Amino acid sequence: MELASLGEFGFINRIKKAQLPHPETVAVGIGDDCAVYRTIQGMDQLVTTDMMVEGIHFDSSLLEPYWIGYRLAAANISDIAAMGGEPSQAVVSLAATMEHEVEWYTAVYEGLHACMQTYGVNLIGGDTVHTKGQVALSVTLLGQVPRGQAVLRQGAKPGDIVFVTGTLGNAQVGLESLQAGIDGYDFAKQVHKGPKPQVRLGQLLRQEGASSLNDVSDGLSSELNEIAKASQVSLFLKPKDIPFHSDVRAWAKSGEGTYKSPLDYALYGGEDFQLVGTMPTASWQAWKKAHPQEPVRAIGYVKAGAPGLFIRLKEGQTRSLEAKGYNHFTRNEDK
Amino acid sequence: MELASLGEFGFINRIKKAQLPHPETVAVGIGDDCAVYRTIQGMDQLVTTDMMVEGIHFDSSLLEPYWIGYRLAAANISDIAAMGGEPSQAVVSLAATMEHEVEWYTAVYEGLHACMQTYGVNLIGGDTVHTKGQVALSVTLLGQVPRGQAVLRQGAKPGDIVFVTGTLGNAQVGLESLQAGIDGYDFAKQVHKGPKPQVRLGQLLRQEGASSLNDVSDGLSSELNEIAKASQVSLFLKPKDIPFHSDVRAWAKSGEGTYKSPLDYALYGGEDFQLVGTMPTASWQAWKKAHPQEPVRAIGYVKAGAPGLFIRLKEGQTRSLEAKGYNHFTRNEDK
Repeated sequence: MELASLGEFGFINRIKKAQLPHPETVAVGIGDDCAVYRTIQGMDQLVTTDMMVEGIHFDSSLLEPYWIGYRLAAANISDIAAMGGEPSQAVVSLAATMEHEVEWYTAVYEGLHACMQTYGVNLIGGDTVHTKGQVALSVTLLGQVPRGQAVLRQGAKPGDIVFVTGTLGNAQVGLESLQAGIDGYDFAKQVHKGPKPQVRLGQLLRQEGASSLNDVSDGLSSELNEIAKASQVSLFLKPKDIPFHSDVRAWAKSGEGTYKSPLDYALYGGEDFQLVGTMPTASWQAWKKAHPQEPVRAIGYVKAGAPGLFIRLKEGQTRSLEAKGYNHFTRNEDK
Repeated sequence: MELASLGEFGFINRIKKAQLPHPETVAVGIGDDCAVYRTIQGMDQLVTTDMMVEGIHFDSSLLEPYWIGYRLAAANISDIAAMGGEPSQAVVSLAATMEHEVEWYTAVYEGLHACMQTYGVNLIGGDTVHTKGQVALSVTLLGQVPRGQAVLRQGAKPGDIVFVTGTLGNAQVGLESLQAGIDGYDFAKQVHKGPKPQVRLGQLLRQEGASSLNDVSDGLSSELNEIAKASQVSLFLKPKDIPFHSDVRAWAKSGEGTYKSPLDYALYGGEDFQLVGTMPTASWQAWKKAHPQEPVRAIGYVKAGAPGLFIRLKEGQTRSLEAKGYNHFTRNEDK
């Protein structure tokens, strides 16, 4: 069905699902000038926002609309996880083109809803407009964390260890193998489509003493450089300790991709939405005893020194790793 | 300067103004995964979001970038005013094209900042991305209102009066006279460029017993139909009581515009961002005594009956007024 024949209000009715995972925090949902929600005493409030544009942040010929919506929600939820917080409420705006049918947009919202349901987020507002350009989607996510407890980038201290959750490089390998039309790599492809923000682990790491925290949206190199600069410390990576899934090892070895080593996928791949951060050694020893089954690995350490990220090559040798952050205003940056 | 040569981070540094009107509510501003802010016990939280697209919601050949930013902030602040609330925090996302230079985008943010400063809103986050299509801007605004006190659309009761703040039709007359390149109509043009959301009056009307409230973003016809439907009442308008500025009277009379009567500009013009609502008669009598200087006028009344808006023509005669809401997905809807 064409969007024009359904109309804006018909579309809103189609995507306005009444079922909220936490209705007890919402006094007024979608349908008035504002939504009205309630916060809990003693909690700090978190807010993050992300915009995704068709052809820049997603390729609708490669990614089904459901997963486009899912990923956008996941990326925002991951920012809340990276503060050690709990996501709560969201609003979503859509600039729609007539290039896609109603069913495509409905599927985008189904993916958004599914991810938000999984992480207990109430979708309580939004805006839908028309554009002649490219589809743009904007999500603003609210969350909470106990007062004064948000884990920032600036808390890393000399003597801390550097940790990471899960495995890295998967999303980039998933994207590249999809783009190349090569079968297999199903785990990596699924991480690309439907990444899992680490909300539970973020809260647990906060409670157990994480001194800094970031989510891996742009690759380990960029994220750890951010922590190093914000904390004014040197971070040292031990490449052999970085955990990889077999899909990343196999893809790097195949020579089909951008990089030839799993390490480079971890450093520059991005969009895994795992967490990376630092923790005092004593807390880390306690963590390992208390949570031996959790997928959190020490991959480096913090020293006093020039703010930056360094990699341990061989005994005694180190190399500086520049942040290769994604610059949205560089030309030809299609990612 | 080209946006590409400044880069995303250079641009963010340029627009990231440290000066917040209410720094005491912000624990962590722009620069981490989330911003962290604090809410006040006993207050309900409000959230609203708006997206504006170049060529659809604004014409950058007619409207200076400063006013594009200002209007977007004002439109969101007006939604908070329409709940009887106070705006507090905002995040802004931009999908930028290379069609405009850095200075153009900087001016958009200057307008956003100026409006937010005026109304005490902290800009605490955002996202900047590239699009090959049309410029899109998205604002999410947070606010607060005493617990359980938000003024909804659904509270109008038979016997209430219908009130409006300020004068109506100005923004549409301002837009049309700008489009026609006709001199004069300076008041109307200024309302189009830099509308003034009625935050103070919204709070005062809430305190003094307003039973329903809406902001005039789509024209009186659409807004009052919304209240009538949400409240399940009939609203009756007395056209002679609707207040107009001389610019609207003169423009309607000139025959240059879309409509021939000031009334039609009030009903269908929109974007004045005045407030319209209802109040019990007793509260209204008290209001008139307590606030004789405030620009709030009674323009109609509420009766039990079929939900809808009716206009009093002559003694005894009434005509139903359909909502002519703006449908964003209708083709050729450029506004």
